[in-house]
Amino acid sequence: MEQFEVHILGCGSALPTTRHNASSQIVRVGNELLMIDCGEGTQLQIRKSRQHFARINNVFISHLHGDHCFGLIGMISTFGLLGRRMPLHIYAHPMLRTLLEPQLDYFCKGMQYEVCIHDIDPTVNKTIFENKNISVETLPLNHRIPCCGFLISEKPKKRHIRPDMLEYYKIPTYERSKLRDGEDYITPEGELIPNERLTTPPAPSRRYAYCSDTAPCPEITETIKGVDMLYHEATFANKERARAKETFHSTAEQAATIARSCEAKKLVIGHFSSRYDDESILLDEARAIFPETVLAKEGITLKL
Amino acid sequence: MEQFEVHILGCGSALPTTRHNASSQIVRVGNELLMIDCGEGTQLQIRKSRQHFARINNVFISHLHGDHCFGLIGMISTFGLLGRRMPLHIYAHPMLRTLLEPQLDYFCKGMQYEVCIHDIDPTVNKTIFENKNISVETLPLNHRIPCCGFLISEKPKKRHIRPDMLEYYKIPTYERSKLRDGEDYITPEGELIPNERLTTPPAPSRRYAYCSDTAPCPEITETIKGVDMLYHEATFANKERARAKETFHSTAEQAATIARSCEAKKLVIGHFSSRYDDESILLDEARAIFPETVLAKEGITLKL
Repeated sequence: MEQFEVHILGCGSALPTTRHNASSQIVRVGNELLMIDCGEGTQLQIRKSRQHFARINNVFISHLHGDHCFGLIGMISTFGLLGRRMPLHIYAHPMLRTLLEPQLDYFCKGMQYEVCIHDIDPTVNKTIFENKNISVETLPLNHRIPCCGFLISEKPKKRHIRPDMLEYYKIPTYERSKLRDGEDYITPEGELIPNERLTTPPAPSRRYAYCSDTAPCPEITETIKGVDMLYHEATFANKERARAKETFHSTAEQAATIARSCEAKKLVIGHFSSRYDDESILLDEARAIFPETVLAKEGITLKL
Repeated sequence: MEQFEVHILGCGSALPTTRHNASSQIVRVGNELLMIDCGEGTQLQIRKSRQHFARINNVFISHLHGDHCFGLIGMISTFGLLGRRMPLHIYAHPMLRTLLEPQLDYFCKGMQYEVCIHDIDPTVNKTIFENKNISVETLPLNHRIPCCGFLISEKPKKRHIRPDMLEYYKIPTYERSKLRDGEDYITPEGELIPNERLTTPPAPSRRYAYCSDTAPCPEITETIKGVDMLYHEATFANKERARAKETFHSTAEQAATIARSCEAKKLVIGHFSSRYDDESILLDEARAIFPETVLAKEGITLKL
């Protein structure tokens, strides 16, 4: 099965600390590296992670708070210095264009590649990117400023051909693609062989949801039902519930409650407040509700 | 004697590496912390250095290449989140205002302190900051875009009073300030006591020069003659001399030649190209010309 994994570059919140970097992660699906958020220092985190700079072609920005986007201009400049030629696509709230373009004009003159900024509407659930293997949808969230999460879904895969049956029915090579698409086979004698006899079901299509920053947002539950992995912000512990509410963030318990109601297979919590020297309290509070919870941490890779 | 020291936050060049951060340093003179340059990730470097965020009131930007200024917006935002009230003064080429103000308007709404941007003309040698202890002058350099270094000078200090002489002549307390300023003393009997008999000379006024980024620029030699410490960029080794010329940077040997001709007491080289995994070649080449050379390194403090 193709790789589908999430590499955490930063999982701190607004105040960077010596323990956590600002938000950023790379989602790898096969050879495609998608970046979600790009806080200050992200380019250094990529370097440490040994992920391939050059394979990042699409960057999705959840919202325009600095800890989710201040790393863009530095990363873009560095890509230029490294001789990049492939366009880089950035998906973000329209205001990013207004803020970034003057910086690109000044700092990135003469760069050999194009930066394509795509406006997204964070208030609707909509497919904003797709290629032959995956799609990315916005997930409207509930934060102090317009903000959306992202749902990355593998497209339905092809069925697996049973070699024994191919041989048995002497099915020619050129028919195989149709069988993988689920079609039945008709022998030269006119006999119909049902597809289920010739193939086995495809690998399941995996889905990953990223939800940061947000107050608890039960409205997303249906859209992300059954995701293989949910990354959800858990800025605060229960004790800071009032502070969470006031700042439109979630507690670890609230993140876990969302994971439980959407029947996620796994929950990763992140976007930790700088007040915690140790996030075990967040992990404990989340696991009390949703046992399949892990803490995000810079440098880890989570497989779907 | 008051502290006068330079704390290196970053001494890499345009491409950040896992070994070096983008340019930034804190110059401490007594309780005053001056920042010079502010590349991406500087706020994290301050945190690691345990320098007091709140005491940084003045930031001097040598030029508008990203590795010298991309850290400003993140640092300014973080100061705001930390509840700063004191204004922050930034001295830079006028273009910084154009680029930074829209970002401040968007990202720093409601911040409790003021960011005051001061335009400087990097093409002239001029005093751009002073307080009762120090002054800061621009040093025109020779780079691909307008760029200046900075000369930080302690003002002349007061003379030291000799307690034995005070006692001998029974000089009243209110006369002491004048003696420290160098005045003679006239006894109630009308006798003139020359100042040199009552005081010893003040501690020397120290000077620190920061020169990055630049091609060799002998024009600065007179202005920085005899500095106690010179920080000079040494992006390349001799082997890359042609590359240095082409990009308006210096080799380590060229930096050392400037240090020698300006009779600096000490040379610190930095702004290392990412091609060197080990800067000992740069150190060796500089020391061959100017033995009192050290390599900059993140986290070190250099005393004047």
